[in-house]
Amino acid sequence: MIAVLAGGVGAARFLAGLVRAVPPEQVTAIVNTGDDTVLHGLHVSPDLDTVTYTLAGAVNPGTGWGLEGETFAAMDALDRYGAPTWFRLGDRDLATHLYRTGRMGSGARLSEIADEVAAAWSVPTRLIPMSDDPVRTRIELASGVEVEFQEYFVKMRHSVAVRSVRFDGAESAAPAPGVLEALSDAALVVVAPSNPVVSIGPILSIAGVSEILAGRRETVVAISPIVAGAALKGPADRLLTELGEEASVVGVARRLGPVAGTLVVDDADRDLAPEVEAAGTRCVVCPTVMRDATAARDLALEVLRVGGAA
Amino acid sequence: MIAVLAGGVGAARFLAGLVRAVPPEQVTAIVNTGDDTVLHGLHVSPDLDTVTYTLAGAVNPGTGWGLEGETFAAMDALDRYGAPTWFRLGDRDLATHLYRTGRMGSGARLSEIADEVAAAWSVPTRLIPMSDDPVRTRIELASGVEVEFQEYFVKMRHSVAVRSVRFDGAESAAPAPGVLEALSDAALVVVAPSNPVVSIGPILSIAGVSEILAGRRETVVAISPIVAGAALKGPADRLLTELGEEASVVGVARRLGPVAGTLVVDDADRDLAPEVEAAGTRCVVCPTVMRDATAARDLALEVLRVGGAA
Repeated sequence: MIAVLAGGVGAARFLAGLVRAVPPEQVTAIVNTGDDTVLHGLHVSPDLDTVTYTLAGAVNPGTGWGLEGETFAAMDALDRYGAPTWFRLGDRDLATHLYRTGRMGSGARLSEIADEVAAAWSVPTRLIPMSDDPVRTRIELASGVEVEFQEYFVKMRHSVAVRSVRFDGAESAAPAPGVLEALSDAALVVVAPSNPVVSIGPILSIAGVSEILAGRRETVVAISPIVAGAALKGPADRLLTELGEEASVVGVARRLGPVAGTLVVDDADRDLAPEVEAAGTRCVVCPTVMRDATAARDLALEVLRVGGAA
Repeated sequence: MIAVLAGGVGAARFLAGLVRAVPPEQVTAIVNTGDDTVLHGLHVSPDLDTVTYTLAGAVNPGTGWGLEGETFAAMDALDRYGAPTWFRLGDRDLATHLYRTGRMGSGARLSEIADEVAAAWSVPTRLIPMSDDPVRTRIELASGVEVEFQEYFVKMRHSVAVRSVRFDGAESAAPAPGVLEALSDAALVVVAPSNPVVSIGPILSIAGVSEILAGRRETVVAISPIVAGAALKGPADRLLTELGEEASVVGVARRLGPVAGTLVVDDADRDLAPEVEAAGTRCVVCPTVMRDATAARDLALEVLRVGGAA
């Protein structure tokens, strides 16, 4: 079994490649819920949904999140009420949030619901939220104002300076059933090419996760989401710099080094490999940009080989 | 000011006629919330929405509820999850429930939200929910099983025998701000042609409402929703019979007599007028079937005349 620490779009694309390289039933994804939010009373789990929709082949290929061919009649109608609609929930996507919220109202746990949603989309890969307890990523802006993650990420389009990041609730959140077992039992643990601060960070903040990974660091392979000093998507580069790290594969290696013995970096960062190694992390260089499904599968195959699980 | 006790479709049509007979700002509707429900975590107020959409000219004319030209992408998508979708929430209608639920989550009262929703639809008529506190109509079936109102009304299509009806929460529910004032101050109170048991009944169960109406019974005019022994819409006829009343204007008169001094009945029930009068209620005969907006306005004009408010 291969376990993958997963954020949103980058992780989803990697997972889609991985399940073309190994049987999907042999993959377990531990998914970030730090950017879950409540919108108009509905519980929204953006990363879980992005991974599910992608593995179901139903994701909007243009954005990497949301459903292909989606409509927005409800959001358009919400404008009438002057309600905030900067987080655009598609009509069909709404069904997922309605289902999740209804089930939570009946006392179901997030992890049970994730199973049900995956089954409904015929996704055989196991998708486990990192915790059934609420953990909320909070972003302290340079102005000193603290905002919810989605407000920073979507409303402000992550184009504001950040002073600090914290994971509210993490200290008391228990890992969801199966999380620690998967991380202990997996032949290989992969840290997907997700934002190391706000996508992987929350998962690592859950009790037991970092400890298990540190204890098996040699069979944990991370893939850098930073290529040639820039994030392929999202604010990983900015955040690393703002939090005093280097916006490079070296910065990623420093951040993930304690839990991942190997970092896979793109050909474009070949020159930085010695510096990654000097930081105490084995560095593997290969193409990491997942331009299409074949590239994603090839990256997965390389990661499996590097991790000794091929 | 004219105050109207209102349920759903019949009341909405009457109100649409009334605001063509008097300035809409001079009308206050006290609306039933006993059939409010929570679906997939969203607070749905069917009667409030039916009245709002109708007065906004946006209602689906075919059904009398819901929005014209509505789509159902979210409900169709919900089928995937095996979630109950017998209560069909349209995509644009969902926006209203999302807004209401979001506002309630922020601590807003139902009556504030009703004001905001009416304003968003440019409806100048004041629409007040009977109470900001939850009152839930429960239906005890002949089998002894008790179900929520919408389960009886929508899911079972009110085609099952009923043993009793109760309004859960009514004993402790306070009238919403403005309800008692409107009922005291109105030149005329109209009981709209709504189901006397499950639409008007909950309103009358709120502390103070029946007392005020009984005290001014001579200026309270009810319109019978039963015509020639049958309800124009819904289960009013069945319910009256099942609860031991006559399914006729006489049964309606007996039910509403304590609060309404006058009952307006359709021409089809002319022969029963003496029996209504014998039951202690003045009976006025005129066309009551609101086939179109003009018929609704003519009925409203007649009610105003009968009530001395023309």
